[in-house]
Amino acid sequence: MKRVRAKEASSSPDETIIDVSLKERSYQIIVGDDLLGQAGSRIAAAVPGARCVVVSDANVAALHFQPLAESLERAKIFLGQVIIAPGESSKSFPVLAGLSERLLEIGVERGDCVIALGGGVIGDLAGFAASILRRGVRVVQMPTSLLAQVDSSVGGKTGIDTRQGKNLIGTFHQPSLVLADVATLKTLSPREFRAGYAEVVKYGLIGDAPFFAWLEQNWGDIFSASAGPRRRAVEVSVRAKAAIVAADEREESGTRALLNLGHTFGHALEAFAGYSDRLLHGEAIAIGMRLAFTFSAGRGLCYDGVVAWVKLHLADRGFP
Amino acid sequence: MKRVRAKEASSSPDETIIDVSLKERSYQIIVGDDLLGQAGSRIAAAVPGARCVVVSDANVAALHFQPLAESLERAKIFLGQVIIAPGESSKSFPVLAGLSERLLEIGVERGDCVIALGGGVIGDLAGFAASILRRGVRVVQMPTSLLAQVDSSVGGKTGIDTRQGKNLIGTFHQPSLVLADVATLKTLSPREFRAGYAEVVKYGLIGDAPFFAWLEQNWGDIFSASAGPRRRAVEVSVRAKAAIVAADEREESGTRALLNLGHTFGHALEAFAGYSDRLLHGEAIAIGMRLAFTFSAGRGLCYDGVVAWVKLHLADRGFP
Repeated sequence: MKRVRAKEASSSPDETIIDVSLKERSYQIIVGDDLLGQAGSRIAAAVPGARCVVVSDANVAALHFQPLAESLERAKIFLGQVIIAPGESSKSFPVLAGLSERLLEIGVERGDCVIALGGGVIGDLAGFAASILRRGVRVVQMPTSLLAQVDSSVGGKTGIDTRQGKNLIGTFHQPSLVLADVATLKTLSPREFRAGYAEVVKYGLIGDAPFFAWLEQNWGDIFSASAGPRRRAVEVSVRAKAAIVAADEREESGTRALLNLGHTFGHALEAFAGYSDRLLHGEAIAIGMRLAFTFSAGRGLCYDGVVAWVKLHLADRGFP
Repeated sequence: MKRVRAKEASSSPDETIIDVSLKERSYQIIVGDDLLGQAGSRIAAAVPGARCVVVSDANVAALHFQPLAESLERAKIFLGQVIIAPGESSKSFPVLAGLSERLLEIGVERGDCVIALGGGVIGDLAGFAASILRRGVRVVQMPTSLLAQVDSSVGGKTGIDTRQGKNLIGTFHQPSLVLADVATLKTLSPREFRAGYAEVVKYGLIGDAPFFAWLEQNWGDIFSASAGPRRRAVEVSVRAKAAIVAADEREESGTRALLNLGHTFGHALEAFAGYSDRLLHGEAIAIGMRLAFTFSAGRGLCYDGVVAWVKLHLADRGFP
């Protein structure tokens, strides 16, 4: 299996900057501790001249909209906001249509920017709307869930669901900037945080055994909201994803399929559960990874001991 | 003004092939006389391995679906068909959603292809659906109206309308092949044909005075369905558009704005007429070009004699 860790592009005590190298679509991911309050100047630097509309859901907006809006206003780039109903059911054609029309009414022009403030649903939906608005405006991803920070906010996949399945309609639309503020993770429920942790573990399992070993030692600090280990977990995950996306932006060479570890089984379980709160995406991926390792061992492609280790690590975090 | 004519890339007595040079998104436009019946082998060569779904409207399908489907079946690449209600009102979010879901139900996979058989509405709508289906499948444009053959089928602009305006939601999605069969133009009403002719005249006016002079001499044959002059009119127009698109794919350098001659005034008139059959797009562009030349002369940017010539040419074709 290919090693996907990359060197740090740049860092300071308070934040890490990771470059995603995609030629003219290259961008930076900033992982830090107080990015909501600095978003205005960061975005003004990354997307000069753009005015910004914040797209969020009601739950996230109540927690995080105010400091972000104030920062955008200080930078004189705040244009408006659109609030979406929380939940996977917002990833639909009707909600996409309503959001797109609201963005046009607010007056988003070709040089402006959509800010996706929220979890995976908001990132996928707002990114999709940005990609089709006036045939494409910029998007800045500000993921507030662990799942979105380590997975969905990076890589440019956008999409909505239909009766035929999840994410079957969408675009590839790389963000102009990703601001992953780990302070927002403190507002997640323990269950949501744990679901996101499944995707963190995935990066250890798809090619970074030392990271998996580090997670074994440090999971306690990560779960107890210790800032340093949380930032490290997000940084390593994001760097792994960035390296894979740079190697295979549109899932053409097969490299990007590495990111789907556990997703074949996981998606089947999610479909069975009706894509509901009965089984969160990360929970399905945790079970899916366990099944994938068991399946591999059954075909002689993986040591039984590794399977046992993975199962134990996930079970000890409380995954079913 | 920049000359936009390009040399013929290749030609035979029966058809002309024009290359659109856009690096990995390059494609060919074939202008010919019996392309519906040869579409299967042409598409199989341009998009190897793809199965095809034909998207059309009820009017066009009644006239042209049968020979196309038979050709696709001979090539063993026919997968299905979707029929849309005719008219601009189909360029909407609800119709886009319905079309996308039908394409998924039919089983379109990432390597498959959508064929847009029809006028500008079908080309814009089916092209948009293809661009978001599974984050992008190929599209082959088979324009059957003069307007679509000389303008909307080439260049990759897709889109739908919203209450805020026309084409404000869409993508840039270049086709993999354009088959412009001038035989289909015989089925147009005289009014529709004339409306498309306005866009042909435009190519003479934006940088090809010899072509405008040729139209002055040959408009009679073009309108009376003479195959040779019709093909020549389409070829020169398409070649001009291809050269402009190759120079400015995403309307960033300003070159592509040349194609908007008459469209600022024209869109205002269309909006005033409620985008209805009271004023066809080409009719609005004819009036818009007249107004643009008059406006330019008023500012001292154009000879009065040129304005008179343009007005006379359009009035003699029966434009209001």
